Amino acid sequence: MMTQSPGTFSETNSAEVVSARHAACPNARLATVMTALIRHLHNFAKEVHLTQDEWGLAVDFLTKTGQISSAQRQEFILLSDALGFSMLVDAINNRRPAGATENTVFGPFHVADAPRRQMGDSICLDGKGESCLFEGRVLDLDGQPIGGATVDVWSDNADGFYDVQQPGIQPPGNNRGVFVTGADGRYGFVGIKPVSYPIPDDGPVGQMLAHLGRHPYRPAHMHYLVTAPGFQRLVTHTFVGGDEYLTSDAVFGVKASLIAPYQRLQGQATQWHAPFDFVLAPT
Amino acid sequence: MMTQSPGTFSETNSAEVVSARHAACPNARLATVMTALIRHLHNFAKEVHLTQDEWGLAVDFLTKTGQISSAQRQEFILLSDALGFSMLVDAINNRRPAGATENTVFGPFHVADAPRRQMGDSICLDGKGESCLFEGRVLDLDGQPIGGATVDVWSDNADGFYDVQQPGIQPPGNNRGVFVTGADGRYGFVGIKPVSYPIPDDGPVGQMLAHLGRHPYRPAHMHYLVTAPGFQRLVTHTFVGGDEYLTSDAVFGVKASLIAPYQRLQGQATQWHAPFDFVLAPT
Repeated sequence: MMTQSPGTFSETNSAEVVSARHAACPNARLATVMTALIRHLHNFAKEVHLTQDEWGLAVDFLTKTGQISSAQRQEFILLSDALGFSMLVDAINNRRPAGATENTVFGPFHVADAPRRQMGDSICLDGKGESCLFEGRVLDLDGQPIGGATVDVWSDNADGFYDVQQPGIQPPGNNRGVFVTGADGRYGFVGIKPVSYPIPDDGPVGQMLAHLGRHPYRPAHMHYLVTAPGFQRLVTHTFVGGDEYLTSDAVFGVKASLIAPYQRLQGQATQWHAPFDFVLAPT
Repeated sequence: MMTQSPGTFSETNSAEVVSARHAACPNARLATVMTALIRHLHNFAKEVHLTQDEWGLAVDFLTKTGQISSAQRQEFILLSDALGFSMLVDAINNRRPAGATENTVFGPFHVADAPRRQMGDSICLDGKGESCLFEGRVLDLDGQPIGGATVDVWSDNADGFYDVQQPGIQPPGNNRGVFVTGADGRYGFVGIKPVSYPIPDDGPVGQMLAHLGRHPYRPAHMHYLVTAPGFQRLVTHTFVGGDEYLTSDAVFGVKASLIAPYQRLQGQATQWHAPFDFVLAPT
């Protein structure tokens, strides 16, 4: 009675039937992505025999995740982060040759117009926390220094909050700054030894983590965005060695190569020393 | 330096690393569902080499889908419907023996307290549309009539809208009603020959369909919810044979066995006749 290619909808051919419907999609890439997404989603439901009640819970969860999002809060990015999806997309799109510094998640707390500072300056404006000297070089794959590289850095303060999370409480630009290397490729600045902190856990994603028996903490880290003409943009962190959450970062950002020593300095005004060289891959 | 089972996060083992994190989840079913979901989502991203821009588009799309949802509109259910996911979950959870009437999607327009009517009554209160006699029997798998079965029916009006979509325009209860079979298992009522209509397409899901080159229409159908003690609840439609959207229902609800003849009656006050027997499977 009906003629429908590739057949009428059934449990067996559901994904094929749905994707056949966009055979006339003018955007070939969109069609490819949607065909794969539909197949994986349908296979998921079939594999676990998803119940109607579970489907209803998922609809409710996704709706709440959208509705709590605002200009100040992006709960779907948080969900992507907590499921390791952000790190996976980062990894897929930033495959680097051996020897180049690895990428990790960008995070939501970068600001585009952070203060430009002089090499050696302090980025800590609120006077809180244990002071730390961050220094090293920006190098190419041959170990040659890269002059004119922009090193954009940001971290939480000693209370575990970024300045943009506490307007009116922290001074603007607290624990962030932009530095440019000279011909020797060296960078150096004083900040604080970062502290571990929870991702926002008062929304649907926090509830999900609690139901899964997971904690919401990120191990302490300093953010870096390193750019130089002719080289791939590097978005990364250095993690504080020994942090208790290094093996259980809520957003899966830790890579072994990004753990910095953070050595304690004796008899000096600055309490810690975190040396780290960044190696950029060519574009 | 790090000890992390099953290894640190990488493109290769990303799903395993993320799922290992909920090894202590107290809800075994939740852990099973999330482990499968994470594996399928990660495999999707790897298969299509999802770009950062595409990831950003997806975050934006899901956020808007949540934010347009309200007490009157559920855009995530619409998304699930448009991706065939609702029909798949329906199929998985309503496997029926041969001979039993098949399920299809419930849809968002059922109301729990529809008017109880006498067998033979008309459900059309606005006087619009082509009148149609709906009649048949509710039977068990042996063909024996089921007395005391509740037959809850609803359709759009001749303009393609359900009463609940047009409060103040359509009379409440227009084109819906609840009937109870006698010992002969027979039901019968007068309604209108339903018309095809678009799902709400002024939001993110409508934009998705447009980008995919898909139309938003559902073929004309009458909804049925048939229940009787000792039998599985039947949620289904009868579709109007010959409808132009039968092979391209925007929500994939059509099954060949649910297409009703809708015969034109000559020389009678009622213009159409749609006979259909419902066969319930035992619980």
